[in-house]
Amino acid sequence: MISFTIGRILLAEAALMIPSVIVGVINKEPETWAFLPAIGMLLAIGGIASFRKPENTAIFSRDGYCIVAAAWILLSVFGAIPFWFSGHFRTFWDCVFEIASGFSTTGASILTEVDPLPKGILFWRSFSHWVGGMGVLVFVLAIMPMSEERSLHLMRAEVPGPVVGKLVPRIRDTAKILYGVYTGMTALLTGLLLLGGVPLFDSLCYAFGTAGTGGFATTNAGVGMYQSAYVEVVVSIFMILFGVNFNLYYFILIGKAKDAFKSEELHVYLGIVAASVLAIAANTFHLYQNLGNTFRYSLFQVATIISTTGFATADFANDWPAFSQMILIFLMFTGACAGSTGGGIKMSRIILLFKSAGREIRQLIHPRAVSVIRLEKKPADQALIRTTAGFFILYMGVLFLVTFLLSLDEPDLLTNFTAALACLSNIGPGLGKIGPTGNYAFYSGASKVLLTLTMLAGRLELLPIFVLFDFHTYKNK
Amino acid sequence: MISFTIGRILLAEAALMIPSVIVGVINKEPETWAFLPAIGMLLAIGGIASFRKPENTAIFSRDGYCIVAAAWILLSVFGAIPFWFSGHFRTFWDCVFEIASGFSTTGASILTEVDPLPKGILFWRSFSHWVGGMGVLVFVLAIMPMSEERSLHLMRAEVPGPVVGKLVPRIRDTAKILYGVYTGMTALLTGLLLLGGVPLFDSLCYAFGTAGTGGFATTNAGVGMYQSAYVEVVVSIFMILFGVNFNLYYFILIGKAKDAFKSEELHVYLGIVAASVLAIAANTFHLYQNLGNTFRYSLFQVATIISTTGFATADFANDWPAFSQMILIFLMFTGACAGSTGGGIKMSRIILLFKSAGREIRQLIHPRAVSVIRLEKKPADQALIRTTAGFFILYMGVLFLVTFLLSLDEPDLLTNFTAALACLSNIGPGLGKIGPTGNYAFYSGASKVLLTLTMLAGRLELLPIFVLFDFHTYKNK
Repeated sequence: MISFTIGRILLAEAALMIPSVIVGVINKEPETWAFLPAIGMLLAIGGIASFRKPENTAIFSRDGYCIVAAAWILLSVFGAIPFWFSGHFRTFWDCVFEIASGFSTTGASILTEVDPLPKGILFWRSFSHWVGGMGVLVFVLAIMPMSEERSLHLMRAEVPGPVVGKLVPRIRDTAKILYGVYTGMTALLTGLLLLGGVPLFDSLCYAFGTAGTGGFATTNAGVGMYQSAYVEVVVSIFMILFGVNFNLYYFILIGKAKDAFKSEELHVYLGIVAASVLAIAANTFHLYQNLGNTFRYSLFQVATIISTTGFATADFANDWPAFSQMILIFLMFTGACAGSTGGGIKMSRIILLFKSAGREIRQLIHPRAVSVIRLEKKPADQALIRTTAGFFILYMGVLFLVTFLLSLDEPDLLTNFTAALACLSNIGPGLGKIGPTGNYAFYSGASKVLLTLTMLAGRLELLPIFVLFDFHTYKNK
Repeated sequence: MISFTIGRILLAEAALMIPSVIVGVINKEPETWAFLPAIGMLLAIGGIASFRKPENTAIFSRDGYCIVAAAWILLSVFGAIPFWFSGHFRTFWDCVFEIASGFSTTGASILTEVDPLPKGILFWRSFSHWVGGMGVLVFVLAIMPMSEERSLHLMRAEVPGPVVGKLVPRIRDTAKILYGVYTGMTALLTGLLLLGGVPLFDSLCYAFGTAGTGGFATTNAGVGMYQSAYVEVVVSIFMILFGVNFNLYYFILIGKAKDAFKSEELHVYLGIVAASVLAIAANTFHLYQNLGNTFRYSLFQVATIISTTGFATADFANDWPAFSQMILIFLMFTGACAGSTGGGIKMSRIILLFKSAGREIRQLIHPRAVSVIRLEKKPADQALIRTTAGFFILYMGVLFLVTFLLSLDEPDLLTNFTAALACLSNIGPGLGKIGPTGNYAFYSGASKVLLTLTMLAGRLELLPIFVLFDFHTYKNK
């Protein structure tokens, strides 16, 4: 059963490589052949693994986590093959890092130069953001018939956020609706970028990076190269939009816009965006001198970090004051809304964490008072609060452990800490050596493998990767 | 009732200044007069506040927190007066910072030069560690008759750790036993330091600093100035001993040594000490060349940080590799055992946090399994686990907020982060500008006030300071 599902996912990956091949062929790039061995291997291995339909289609919760974690690791290993054969990367681990960074929508790069890459390879790099943003399994669910219970287990493991809601009774339809909204918004953004004078290829790649909240650019200069306030503001707004829970767009589509706008998570999210933009604008005004530019740069950087995209139009690591950097570090922790394509701890968890800390204080003052924590105006049950606290503890623990191990490799603690955070929250750039003008090339192979796992763990919200590597999983089954 | 208790505490502080006055008189120091206005004000205000014994002696849980928080702030303000009149400090806020650092057993200093200070002032500075280590209120409880319930509320707010146990049925006797053990161990250490050739005055001051896990030294050179491995190893061992839960010493005293050595918290604490010393020794061997010196320096630095004392014999902020610095940062978070004089999150909470994170993972693999978290072989109840998670969230929240506000003042993020952590965990030195050879002098007045509150909040484990500054406390009483 597990091998069947993973086989199907590998077949899907082969199909997902086709657009990149087409781009390569149109541009007559010799490196396009690099996709062929990858597609061949995916078809062969995926075909064998999913050849026999299993009789027993039962699936347990832990199997869901294992499938998702294993699938994402395999996707990254096979997805790295075109990079490797293209000859533009130094080691195979670099390729795995780069594509895992793509699928996990991190956008961290080990490339020192992006410009010399062929367009087919650049397209695959950016397209991986789009695929990873909504989830490869959600995609498979949308196109493949599967039992309800099975689907829910898979979806729960892949879709970010503390609670996974079914929009419509059937999971498969939910997946289709989500992908529909996602595709529509991506198309809209591509159109708006074209209107701004951005070439088609770049428009598509930036739209993929924005939709998946990834952050890979097609040139070293990135979004800033167009010198266009229009392009930057459009991308800013769409980064913020892709950080919103997709369920809200569904509510708007079915005419329940009023309910959507009442969302507590949305209010907190937009409130934090507004407050951060204002605070950073006040703190960086002396750098940009004019009010328009100040807001243009602070809006873009806030949007890119809170949505965990990772584009940049300002070198916040070198040019910005410490206070603005601290705001960005805070946003690196929070991330965007649950059920969006963004990473991080997620707004709804941050709200729950704040409320439970507040409850602890209240309980001291009124020890006998019963205090209920509400989320979206509904009482949150104890299990959810406990899981959220557990998630936060794990998040901080992983962040610390990764920073700790990176310190064996690189002496600058700020670089290590923000590298761990930027990978765990799927952002990409951090501070120090890995700022917007830096990259991850200087880390050793071992550190790159560690960061690759960190990116995947962050994208899948830690637990699937833990379950996969916990030997208890394979005992007394 | 509140004013009565606080009045008594202020009177106690006047009494606690007398030894410093005696030291000043013996050394014929003109600055000794600086204590007189402080003692006069304490006697006057304390006398008026506690003149009338209240009829209503009932006390609520929140009152306990308010009394403790208010008492510590007032102790710091009045305790700063001798510093101020001595003429060796630049501003009154510097004096408050310095004495709050003393009482909270932080050991962070705004002095660039310690050597020129008169001995009476140095004695008061170090003595404040000893007083603050076990708790001023525990002291007051030990010498003042008070109802049982009232005492427990006060003690719970002042003694660190998630659970406060009564050793013997009467709180007052418990407080006396604790102070007895504390005094005995301090006397033993003073004797051992005298044997090592350390002058009496310095022996006393270092014993106070070690017992309270404070960290103020009597010279700029600190403990390292004696160039004596004996002195450094003795101080290392005592720093580790003062980081152990004092209840264990009581068990040993009453002949239950076996029970004491079975403590899970003790095992984890000593295990972390041993592992950290080994890892740092391996990582710093190239600096010291010989095995003896390597262990001498790594043992001392691990002991000083995990016990949150803050002495230093090596400049770990400038000389040590990043990996060793990360180990120290980890120890800055954990701190020592609950019920010791050390600060930080405390071992027993760290154990609970690890176990609850582990449970979250287990629950995923076996969703229907009931898993009980055990601490010291007894099942920990849900409320304790919840409170511990809440404490951790608050701790990280305060740490972030303080780092954030400091960034308005100082551009180096590592300095700000470790300053916030070193004050919150009551350690003293950190990394960057506030390493063992640095100090807090360069921060602005506002930052110093913030760090003063952070030190007190850390010493009182956050909640009392929150309750005091929460306006809800004063509503519908």
